[in-house]
Amino acid sequence: MEKINSVTVVGGTHGNELSGIYLLRKWDKQPQLIGRSSFNTQTFISNPKACTSNKRFIDCDLNRQFLIDDLNNSNLTKYEQCRAKDINHSFGPKGKAKTDFIIDLHNTTSNMGACLMLLQSDSFNRRMGAYVKSLMPEAVIFYQDFVPVEQHAFLISMATQGVTIEVGPQPQAVLRQDIMEAMEELTSHVLDYVEHCNCGTLPSLPKEYVAFSHVETLKMPIDDNGNRVGVIHKQVQDRDFSPLRPGDPVFSLFDGGDIYWEGDYEAYPLFINEAAYYETSNAMSLSKKITIEI
Amino acid sequence: MEKINSVTVVGGTHGNELSGIYLLRKWDKQPQLIGRSSFNTQTFISNPKACTSNKRFIDCDLNRQFLIDDLNNSNLTKYEQCRAKDINHSFGPKGKAKTDFIIDLHNTTSNMGACLMLLQSDSFNRRMGAYVKSLMPEAVIFYQDFVPVEQHAFLISMATQGVTIEVGPQPQAVLRQDIMEAMEELTSHVLDYVEHCNCGTLPSLPKEYVAFSHVETLKMPIDDNGNRVGVIHKQVQDRDFSPLRPGDPVFSLFDGGDIYWEGDYEAYPLFINEAAYYETSNAMSLSKKITIEI
Repeated sequence: MEKINSVTVVGGTHGNELSGIYLLRKWDKQPQLIGRSSFNTQTFISNPKACTSNKRFIDCDLNRQFLIDDLNNSNLTKYEQCRAKDINHSFGPKGKAKTDFIIDLHNTTSNMGACLMLLQSDSFNRRMGAYVKSLMPEAVIFYQDFVPVEQHAFLISMATQGVTIEVGPQPQAVLRQDIMEAMEELTSHVLDYVEHCNCGTLPSLPKEYVAFSHVETLKMPIDDNGNRVGVIHKQVQDRDFSPLRPGDPVFSLFDGGDIYWEGDYEAYPLFINEAAYYETSNAMSLSKKITIEI
Repeated sequence: MEKINSVTVVGGTHGNELSGIYLLRKWDKQPQLIGRSSFNTQTFISNPKACTSNKRFIDCDLNRQFLIDDLNNSNLTKYEQCRAKDINHSFGPKGKAKTDFIIDLHNTTSNMGACLMLLQSDSFNRRMGAYVKSLMPEAVIFYQDFVPVEQHAFLISMATQGVTIEVGPQPQAVLRQDIMEAMEELTSHVLDYVEHCNCGTLPSLPKEYVAFSHVETLKMPIDDNGNRVGVIHKQVQDRDFSPLRPGDPVFSLFDGGDIYWEGDYEAYPLFINEAAYYETSNAMSLSKKITIEI
């Protein structure tokens, strides 16, 4: 792993996820909180127009616009598509980015706690998870490594290394002190980890830890017109990263009766009832519990 | 109290408060759930355009457009202002409404539980609170009787009698089973109460009960540019209807330190950190605990 010289901390990729936006304001006044000796740290509000509007996005989700083909497609002219190209010009280009490490700060309405989301399971990231969990045992390490980094459309996929920090539950357009503190703590651990790696001072870490790996997305029950005909079962609501077993109730129908999960493995849901996924009828993501060895 | 012949159950006054919207869809398929023998019940989505957009409103808050002067002011032409006039034409006119009783269904991001909000403390409403609490002790009865009904701008002020049902916490654009069930239960008790009053079958009720009465609104700490410089203190967050005493911390500042509440009475906050009040910098409402005698 080469030395990381430049870290960019991003907030406001979704304009109504307030913790990162307000943390950046705080850190801009107190830059020592995110500064470390071995690299430069900069902050960046990625979607200022959405932040001003207190909306997730203006035209489309900025955090889905970083596929290489899309960044190179001049026919994509929506606001966030243009914004992604600007960001790619300033901080990228994707794959050869000017910034070595991106931290993108997000909130969710789901009860996911402090979650570190990683696009690859290389040694650097595996050890990062171990380091974070050694200091913040309640943090969840979530791997989205089902395709190579460059095939992801997330903002952080622009740089060689990076993390998405996802903290909830927090309603859209609300700022909670507890959620802001959890995000600040998790961010601080990630910055310390990069510093330790750069300086060769990483302490000894546990040889393995529990993490989660993305499997699939579960849709809401809908009718032929696309309208929801049920709700996430109250036994599942708020139980992100708790087991969902084949045969467990997962939805409750408005006209009575439950829908049971018909999978063939023990799933660990996340993003349960996330407000932003309302339009796509996503009910939750499902993951598997895994053991990560370092 | 004259007999109530017509009850209107309203949802979607705010388009991203989903419990009422989905309950109306459910009840339209199962009208017996809200039908009673002594009156007609109709359902009504008051702001369909906001519902389709999954937003609180299009131009302005529909639930603040029902002052008589505003309803009669032809210069007010925003979408919700026009909508209020349409609704007043169909169900009103305010003060002489064609519907005798309105139930307006709302959600809040605040931890308010199931809350029955009343614009007057007449014998009918006082007994309604006692009836509801006898069957649903966790419900909160909240009085907004600081001005006569006709001087309120809320939708329910159109009719002689009515209630706003406010249930939370639920993020905007999220539908939770537990919140939907609490709203359905509270609505059912209110309908049963009207039925009992009409039929002369009201059971004997406790002579008094605890309720809350609106006092004032507390603003977020902001700087000269209107930007928030702090957050609701985590000791207050989620503690709607719990006591806030003079000298208690109420805000935490981003640059360190707390702001303490300087009131001269024991306050009971509600609408703590409600997302919809972000733009007006309202932090919470404050109420007093009162004893209602019937």
